[in-house]
Order: sequence, then structure tokens, then C-alpha cells
Amino acid sequence: MDYDQLALDAHKQHRGKITMKLRDESELTKDKLSTYYTPGVAAVSRAIADDPSLLPVYTWTNNLVAVISDGSAVLGLGNIGPRGSMPVMEGKALLFKQFANIDSVPITLDVHSADEIVSVVKAIAPSFGAINLEDIAAPICFEVEERLKADLPIPVFHDDQHGTAVVVLAGLINAMKVTGKSLPECKIVTIGAGAAGTAIIKLLHKYGVGSIAAVDSKGIISDTRTDLNDEKKQLLAYVDGSTDGTLEDAIRGADIFIGVSKPGLLTPDMVHTMNTDPIIFALANPTPEIMPDEARAAGAAVVATGRSDFPNQVNNATAFPGIFRGALDNRVRMITDEHKLAAAEAIASLVQNPNTEEIIPSVFDDRLVPTIAAVIV
Amino acid sequence: MDYDQLALDAHKQHRGKITMKLRDESELTKDKLSTYYTPGVAAVSRAIADDPSLLPVYTWTNNLVAVISDGSAVLGLGNIGPRGSMPVMEGKALLFKQFANIDSVPITLDVHSADEIVSVVKAIAPSFGAINLEDIAAPICFEVEERLKADLPIPVFHDDQHGTAVVVLAGLINAMKVTGKSLPECKIVTIGAGAAGTAIIKLLHKYGVGSIAAVDSKGIISDTRTDLNDEKKQLLAYVDGSTDGTLEDAIRGADIFIGVSKPGLLTPDMVHTMNTDPIIFALANPTPEIMPDEARAAGAAVVATGRSDFPNQVNNATAFPGIFRGALDNRVRMITDEHKLAAAEAIASLVQNPNTEEIIPSVFDDRLVPTIAAVIV
Repeated sequence: MDYDQLALDAHKQHRGKITMKLRDESELTKDKLSTYYTPGVAAVSRAIADDPSLLPVYTWTNNLVAVISDGSAVLGLGNIGPRGSMPVMEGKALLFKQFANIDSVPITLDVHSADEIVSVVKAIAPSFGAINLEDIAAPICFEVEERLKADLPIPVFHDDQHGTAVVVLAGLINAMKVTGKSLPECKIVTIGAGAAGTAIIKLLHKYGVGSIAAVDSKGIISDTRTDLNDEKKQLLAYVDGSTDGTLEDAIRGADIFIGVSKPGLLTPDMVHTMNTDPIIFALANPTPEIMPDEARAAGAAVVATGRSDFPNQVNNATAFPGIFRGALDNRVRMITDEHKLAAAEAIASLVQNPNTEEIIPSVFDDRLVPTIAAVIV
Repeated sequence: MDYDQLALDAHKQHRGKITMKLRDESELTKDKLSTYYTPGVAAVSRAIADDPSLLPVYTWTNNLVAVISDGSAVLGLGNIGPRGSMPVMEGKALLFKQFANIDSVPITLDVHSADEIVSVVKAIAPSFGAINLEDIAAPICFEVEERLKADLPIPVFHDDQHGTAVVVLAGLINAMKVTGKSLPECKIVTIGAGAAGTAIIKLLHKYGVGSIAAVDSKGIISDTRTDLNDEKKQLLAYVDGSTDGTLEDAIRGADIFIGVSKPGLLTPDMVHTMNTDPIIFALANPTPEIMPDEARAAGAAVVATGRSDFPNQVNNATAFPGIFRGALDNRVRMITDEHKLAAAEAIASLVQNPNTEEIIPSVFDDRLVPTIAAVIV
């Protein structure tokens, strides 16, 4: 289907995707004005000024997420700036509302350095109950998230990193049930060390896997590489960086391949060299590192992609609505690694009988949000 | 009525005042996701990245105002900070929605210098169709508005200044009809030279009035004063600053008194010294500079206050919903003095037969928004 034209038409017809309404939709009267505006509102403001913990009791911040982007790494579009990225961020607001009934405001920023982004988000943070960072280019996204998490009293979550990592882990937990393997014994190869790849590596390490070899465009990320930036150097604490080599070298005998990189990087020949019952997460979008039919033909036991037209879609929307729902409802101040691990287990638990065709629940499964939210405490 | 308790209860019950909804409220399906999110949304983003003027065609920014405050000068509460001010800003969002069906997002800032406020607002500006500045203390509010107006391609309007000034001028235009006086011949005295007072003086000067004497807590603002800050020095271009004196001196023989200062500053004795058929706008809130019955007893022909329980309420909500409605619908890039003058005339025109009891239309008059919006072009 030509979604391009459908999308252009629908956006124009509806003049965007979100709008506002009043919580109390009663007729506007003098009394209503006096209750919600002056003079009544002064008592509410005084109460919050005296005790800021009342902010979510009396204002819409209890259900409100800021969707923050500088438009520097948007979908497959790259750096398209704050205005170009607005439809995507408004789309994220649609997902927040439709999946989890969360209000969110897309804020696209006309600044791009870590210092500036951090300053702006800290300045506006009192207006929100949580912060979702979106489509900010690596490595800036790492510093931005780390500093905001340290400085703000509300949850800050970079969905491109952690949403993806949570769903990947959920899928792997169920892929173990399909193949009879055990993650603590699995040898994993990742390719792509951007926002998603880095978060996947860290979360799998935290969960406890056998070993991880991280590959970037130059080969295995190892101790002996002299071209690594700070973020990749830090990754050496989470991966097996003791041997150099190519993707071909890394993948020989591996149990699991996780790609968040480019189309076509994984060949059937490489899959043939993997351990028995290999598990392939080929998440490059829209064209995966290897097409599912090729992977299966080459012996893959389980294949996941980022696409909705193949089985086992790794889609952030499986995770983030429930994670934020829980964080807001339970007044969680920080989303921790433990929360992410628990969310992955919760997602995995919703698949009754994991099999080749189903290791991850559908994003439309309405048990997802309450099940995940219950573990974000 | 005890609006304090009513307000606390209502805010708690409804968990704030505003929420969001989707413009297309159809069921969530795969096709809907593909139209409003990936892959369809990419075409919309690309279109805007190529031509930023399409932003309001395809996104909710066409109907969206940021309500920005740093909480430094809120209602009668003073500097209560970003969290304390949130209920007031969310209240402003309620007014925007209920009066003009405009979406708005309350953004309360944790920064307070002009430089910081300007930087933050410029950074987030691509996310909005217009900026409403609210309850930012003078004199910082003047610099913030001026710099943002110069730098941003969307309307920036400090309602405390200009909304008030527009409604005051509208009231005076009709007070002329009641008294048979003519503004170009009137001698006006203002007291209070903060955000509202300054804007009133400038707009009346632009309209063309006989003379204005501006009084602050130290007396008439005049050439010979050595204690004036920069903002008050600039006011000398708009007022008659040739004579020193007190409020008593200034008001002798004046036609119009406009107070945006403190309760009780205007005495009946002073009113007795004014020209025949004096016009009194006593706007200090909630207790005016003189109570309407006292002013009338002392000979005032027309009295206006800021209160809804007396005739002739000067209420910003008379003006700003229509001004923003017009600015958004007509893609106005800047709200000019000419727009404010036209808005005042439009408001005044809605009172068929101006009389002592009615010089300003009710905020509930549903002709206000379309009539004002039509002249903001």
C-alpha cells in the first residue's frame, strides 16, 4: 500500500494527530472560571508552592510525558531538524495516547549540543511528569540521558535505546524456550553500536549472557582497536573484546545474532557457520540485515525483524507505553536497569507457548500495558 | 463562595484541567499505525524538512500556543516558581480551549534570567504556532518579549501587558461615547508602571490621547527624576514628564484615571478634583484603587474594575482568545500595535449602546473571538 500518500492526506485532513480537551467538559460559567482560574486557582498554586510533591495531585503532570527530540537521527531520515521531526514526535504522542492513555507533548528542539539540550530540558522539566528522549543522534544521546537522569527528579527514558533493548531481551527470553538454549550460556554477536546497539549490549550484560561480541563497521570492538570513540571504549566493559576480527570471525559458532545496522550485512553463508538452532534478530529497518526467508532457509530456528509484515516484530511500542504508564502511576523517580529487566520478563510472560512464529506479543495485545506497568514500581 | 476549597477539590478530582485526545479517534489498527507512524509519517516529515512552511499544514502546531511562565509574578501570589505557577498556566490553557478552541501547553520554566528564558523559548519554538508569555516579572518580561519577537517567526504576545492594554483601550473608546469626551483631548493619569501599566501607556499613546501622566510609588515619572530604571526612562517618550509632583498633583483636572497598582490609592477627595464626568479604571485586583460605589458617589461617570462582580470588568480573556485565534488562522507572524488597536476597536464595537453599566462586552459574548480574529490579519 502507498502509505506515503495516505499519510500526507490524513495528516492534512486532520491538521495533525493530537489535540486537547478539558478534563471537566461542563459548560463555561462564571463559577467554573472562578474554580479553575482566579480566584480559586490561587489556593491550588499556594498548596503546590508550599509542597511541590502535590504537583501531580492538582495538575495534568500526573499523566504527562514530554517527547523530546532535536530531530538529529529520525527514523531512516537522519538529521531532518526540529520541524521535519515534528510529525514523528506527534506520532509518538499518538502511540502514548492510544496504547496507554498517556498525555504527551512533542517538543522538537532547535539546539543540538548535549549542553544545550540538557539545559533546555532541565528548564522545562517542572512542566512534565516524565521525559521521553527520541531520535537524538549517538553519541550525544548518551550524555544527554545520563546527565538528565542524574539531575531531574522525574523519569528520563531514551526509548530508542532502552525500549528496543527491553523488547529484544523479551524476545530472546522466549527464543530460549523455543530452542532449549540458555542465555547465560549463549554466545551473542551484535552489529551496530549506535543508541539501540549500545543499550542492547548493556541490558544483555546486566541480564547475564554467556558472551557478547560487538561488531561495528570496522570489525569486532576489541582492546587492540585504536580508533574507538569514548562510547565504544566504554562498551569494552560489557563485551568480549579480547579478539580482533571481522563479522565473519565473530559469528562463527555464535548462538544469537542481533543486527541494528544496515540491510544485507548477514549472509546465509555466515548463518551456516553459527551454532545449531541459531537465533537471528535482524532489526535494520525497513530492510533487515538478512530477510527472514533466507535466514530460515540457512537454518535459523527463530527470526525476528523490525517489520510488522513478518512474525516476531521487535517494536518499541511493545514496551514504552507500559513502562511510562507504570512510572507515572507509581511515581517512580528513575527507570532503572531492574525495571527494564522486569519489563522484558513481563512482556515475555505474555506469550503462552513461544514458538518459531511467536516469541513477542503483538503490540495490540491489551494485556501489555497493565502487565508491564505493574512491575515498574 | 469559598472558591479555595472548591478549587482544591475540583483540581484533585479531575487530576488537573486539561488532557489530550486524538484528532482521528478511529480504532487503532495496523493501517492506522502505518499512516500516522512508520512508514507513512516519513513522507510527511520529508515534506516539512523540504518546506518548513508546511509545518502547520501537517502538524497540530496550526492550533497550538505555548503558555510560558517562570512563575515569577503570578496573580497576587508573586514569585511562586515553576511548579506553583503550573495550575495558573493550566488555567490559561483552559481559557484558550474553552473560549477559542485553541490547544495550548503550559510550560513553566525553572530559569529566571532574560537570557535563559529567551534561550529556552527559542529552542522549543519550532514545536508551537505561537507563544503566550505569562506572569513573568517586570522588567525582565519586556526584554524577553522584545528579543523573542525579533528572533522568532511566530507571534509572541505577553498577555499581562497587551491583553490588558487592549481591553482598557476598548473600554475607554466606549467610555468616550458615554461621556461625550474625546480621547485625543483627554488628560489621563496612570498609576503603576509594571507590565500592564507600561503597555497601557504605550498603546494609549499610539492610539493618540491628549496627555498621559504616569505615576509610580515615588510620584509623577518626570524628566527631573534621578531614580528611574531604564524601563521608566523609556516611558518618558510616551508621557508628559515635564512636571514633578504627587498623584494628587497629577490627577487635578484629569479626565481619566487608570490604576494598575494597589488597593485604596485613589480617594474620593482626589476624584472631586478631576475634570467633569471623570472616568475611573481601578484595576488593582482583587481590591481596586477605589471601590466603584465610592467612585460613583464622588462623581465618576464610568467606573471599571478587574472584578467580575462589578460592571465593566477589564478581563484579559476578553481579548487574548480572539487575538490568538486570528494570529493562528491567518498565519500572522507578529502581533503589532496596529493589531492591538484594531482588536480594541473590535471589542468596543460589540457594545451596542455603551452606558455607565456597560462599556465592555462580557467575556462570555460568543461574538468576541470571531470579531477580534477577523481583524488580526
